[in-house]
Amino acid sequence: MDDLKQYALTLATQARQASRRLGGIDGGQRNTWLARTAELLVENGSVLTEANERDLVVASENGLSGAAIDRLRLTSDRLAAMVTALQEIAALPDPVGEVIESNVRPNGLLVTRVRVPLGVVFFIFESRPNVTIDAAALCVKSGNAVILRGGKEAIHSNRALYEILVEAARECGLPSGAVQLVDTVDRAAVGEFLALGSLIDVTIPRGGKSLIERVAADATMPIIKHFDGICHVFVDRAADLEMARRIVVDSKCQRPGVCNAAETLLVDREVAETFLPEIAGSLEAEGVLLKGCPETCRLVPSAEEAREVDFRTEYLDLVISVRVVDDVAAAIDHIDEFGSGHTEAIVTADLETSRRFCRDVDSSAVMVNASTRFNDGGEFGLGAEIGISTDKFHARGPCGLRELTCYKYVVHGAGQLKSG
Amino acid sequence: MDDLKQYALTLATQARQASRRLGGIDGGQRNTWLARTAELLVENGSVLTEANERDLVVASENGLSGAAIDRLRLTSDRLAAMVTALQEIAALPDPVGEVIESNVRPNGLLVTRVRVPLGVVFFIFESRPNVTIDAAALCVKSGNAVILRGGKEAIHSNRALYEILVEAARECGLPSGAVQLVDTVDRAAVGEFLALGSLIDVTIPRGGKSLIERVAADATMPIIKHFDGICHVFVDRAADLEMARRIVVDSKCQRPGVCNAAETLLVDREVAETFLPEIAGSLEAEGVLLKGCPETCRLVPSAEEAREVDFRTEYLDLVISVRVVDDVAAAIDHIDEFGSGHTEAIVTADLETSRRFCRDVDSSAVMVNASTRFNDGGEFGLGAEIGISTDKFHARGPCGLRELTCYKYVVHGAGQLKSG
Repeated sequence: MDDLKQYALTLATQARQASRRLGGIDGGQRNTWLARTAELLVENGSVLTEANERDLVVASENGLSGAAIDRLRLTSDRLAAMVTALQEIAALPDPVGEVIESNVRPNGLLVTRVRVPLGVVFFIFESRPNVTIDAAALCVKSGNAVILRGGKEAIHSNRALYEILVEAARECGLPSGAVQLVDTVDRAAVGEFLALGSLIDVTIPRGGKSLIERVAADATMPIIKHFDGICHVFVDRAADLEMARRIVVDSKCQRPGVCNAAETLLVDREVAETFLPEIAGSLEAEGVLLKGCPETCRLVPSAEEAREVDFRTEYLDLVISVRVVDDVAAAIDHIDEFGSGHTEAIVTADLETSRRFCRDVDSSAVMVNASTRFNDGGEFGLGAEIGISTDKFHARGPCGLRELTCYKYVVHGAGQLKSG
Repeated sequence: MDDLKQYALTLATQARQASRRLGGIDGGQRNTWLARTAELLVENGSVLTEANERDLVVASENGLSGAAIDRLRLTSDRLAAMVTALQEIAALPDPVGEVIESNVRPNGLLVTRVRVPLGVVFFIFESRPNVTIDAAALCVKSGNAVILRGGKEAIHSNRALYEILVEAARECGLPSGAVQLVDTVDRAAVGEFLALGSLIDVTIPRGGKSLIERVAADATMPIIKHFDGICHVFVDRAADLEMARRIVVDSKCQRPGVCNAAETLLVDREVAETFLPEIAGSLEAEGVLLKGCPETCRLVPSAEEAREVDFRTEYLDLVISVRVVDDVAAAIDHIDEFGSGHTEAIVTADLETSRRFCRDVDSSAVMVNASTRFNDGGEFGLGAEIGISTDKFHARGPCGLRELTCYKYVVHGAGQLKSG
C-alpha cells in the first residue's frame, strides 16, 4: 500500500514537471510527436498484435464476454484506424495559446483571455487499445501531461503501446513524463492517484457506472464524467411520421450498445394510434423488444408491460421502453424525471414545439428531426473525443481538445495603476 | 439535525423547481425584477438601516473587529452603490440562450452550442450586505435559482434584503424559489446543503480559508472557489524602474486587505542595488514593513529577515516579502513554488521576457506593466463578479454572468440518420 502511494506520487510528480515543460513546447513539436507515434505504430504492428494476443488468451481463459473480447482485439483495420486518428488529431488547430477574446479597457489595458492546458490528466478507461492512443494524443495535443490507467485485461497491449508513445516522445524531445502508464493491475492504485488533487488537475473516468461512482466519490480533484445514457425520442403530433419511424429505428438499432442510442420512445397521444403499430413493426423486424405503458400495450399487443424501473434503465441492447404522453409538455416532464441528461430528440414539423423542447430539455444535446446517434465529437465537428460528459460544469457533451483546456487572463499595460 | 436536513431539502427542491421555470422566463422579465428590486431598496432604506443597526449592535457586543464591523455596515452610500450595481447588471447582455458557436456539418445538420444556466447555485458568503444583493442579481440574471447563506453577523440585514428580493419576485412573476435565504445561523445547515449534489448544481463559498477548505471537502457538487491571493510583482532588469516603483506601491498599498493586492516583490539581481533602496523608501513612506531575503536585507537595512513561511503568507496588510532573484526564469520558479495562482505582474520593457512570463506563469491573471489590483470583473469588462476563482476548472479569475452558465448542444436536422 505504501509502495502504491509512493508509485502514484512519483508518476504524478513527473507528470506535473512534464506539464510545466510542455507549456514551452510549441504545437509543431507536439504534432511531430503525433506523426512519429503513427509511424511507430505501423512499424511495430507485429509486436503490438503479439502483445494483444497475450491479452486475448488471458481474456478467454477468464471467460470474458464476446463483446468485451471484441473491444479488446487489435486487428489490422483497427491499427489503421488508430493511425488515421493520430493524423486527424495532428491536423486539428492547436488549442494552446488561442486568444479566446480580447477587450481594450477605457484605461488602455488590453485584456485577453488565452487558452491554456488544464495541466495533468488522470485518465481511467476500459480495455480498448485504441482508446489508449486516442487519449494520449488528445491530452498531449492540448498541452497536458497524461497518466493512463487502462483496464487490466489490456495490460500487455497497453505496455506495448506505451513503449511506442514514449519512444516517439524521446525522439521528438517531449518530456518523459508527458505520457505515463500505470503499470500495475492492482485496483488500489486508482485510489492513490485520486488522492493527489494538488498534482493532478482533472480525472476522467470511463467505464461502468460503479467505477465512475467510486471515482466521483473519492477524487480530490475535478472530474469529467459520464453516467447513464438514457436517451429519448419524442414523436410529436406534428411529426412527419415516416421521418419519425426512420429516426426511431436509427436511434435504437444503428448501434444499440453505445451511450447515445435511444432507450425510450415517447409518443404524442394524438398520433399514437397511427404511429405505434407502425413503429412496432419496424422495430420488431430489427429484433427489438418493446416494453410499453398500458396504452402502448393496448395498441401493440406484442409489447411487454413496462415497469417504472424500465424507464430508468440503460438497456444498451435491442430493447426499448415506450410511453404514450399527452403532449410536448408531458414529454419534457418525463425526460426531466427519467432522463440522464445525455441526448434527447424530438420529431416535429412545428416550430414553436421544437423551440420549447430545445429550451426546456436540460441535456447535453437536444436533436430536432435527427437521430440521437449524432451526439458525438466527430459528428459535431470537434474532431476526436475523449468522452461525452453528462455533467453541466466545465464540459458538457462530447469532450475534445477544447474541453481539455482552461484559460488565463493575460493583461498588457503601460504602467496603469488602480489609484489612477 | 433531522429538521435541518428537511429544511435544506425543502429549499433545494424549491430552488430546483424554480430553476426549471426560470428557463421559460425571458431576459426582459428578469431585468424588470432587477429594476424593481432597486426601487424597493430605495423605498425601504430606513427598514434596511434599522435591521442593519440590530446586526451592528450584536456585532459590537460580540467584539467583532473594526474592519469586520465596517464591512457589515450599510451606509446610504453603500445602499446607493447597491442600486447602481443592480442597474448595471440589468444593462448587461442576457447570457441565457446566446449561441456561442454554430457549425453546419457536411450532412446538413446545424450544430449550435447554446448558453444555459447552471441551474441551482448555493452561495456561502461573508457578512457584507451588498454581496447579498450582488449575488442574487448575478444568479437570477444568468437564469439560475440561488440559495443564499450569508454570515451570521448579517442575519437581520439579510432577512430585510431577502424580503425585498422576494417582494420584487412576487410583483414581477418570478417563481418564489428563485431566491431563497438560509434563515438559520446554525452552522450545521451548510453541511446539509453540501450533501444535496443531486439538487444543487454548484456551490460558491466565499470567506476564510478554513471555511473554503471545509466546503471543498464536504461538497457533493462542483464548487467555484478562491483560496489564497499570494500575488507577486517581478521587476525585471529591463524594467522602467520609475514605472516599477509606482506599480509595486499601487499593487501593495492601494487596498492592502484584498486578494489581488501584492504580497511578494521579486527583484532581478541586475537592478536590485539601484531599485531596492528606492522602492523600500516609497513603501516605508506608506507604512509598509519589508521582510527580505539576505540580499534584500543587505541593501535595505531597515528590512526584517524573511523566513520561508513569509513567502507563503497572504498578509492582507501593510507587509511585503521581498526576494532578489537571478532572472525571469528564477522569478517564474519562485512563483510556481510559492504562488497561489491568483495574480502575478511583471514590469519589463523586453518583449521576449514578457512573452516568457505570460506563457510560463500559471495564474488566473498575468499582468505586464500594470498593477495586480486590476484582476477584477469590473476592470476586465465582465461587469459585476461573484468572486475570483483560483481553480483551473470551468471558471478561472473573475466570475461574472458567463461563469454562472454552461451550454448545451442544440442540433437541427431534416431527418438525418447515422445509418445514412
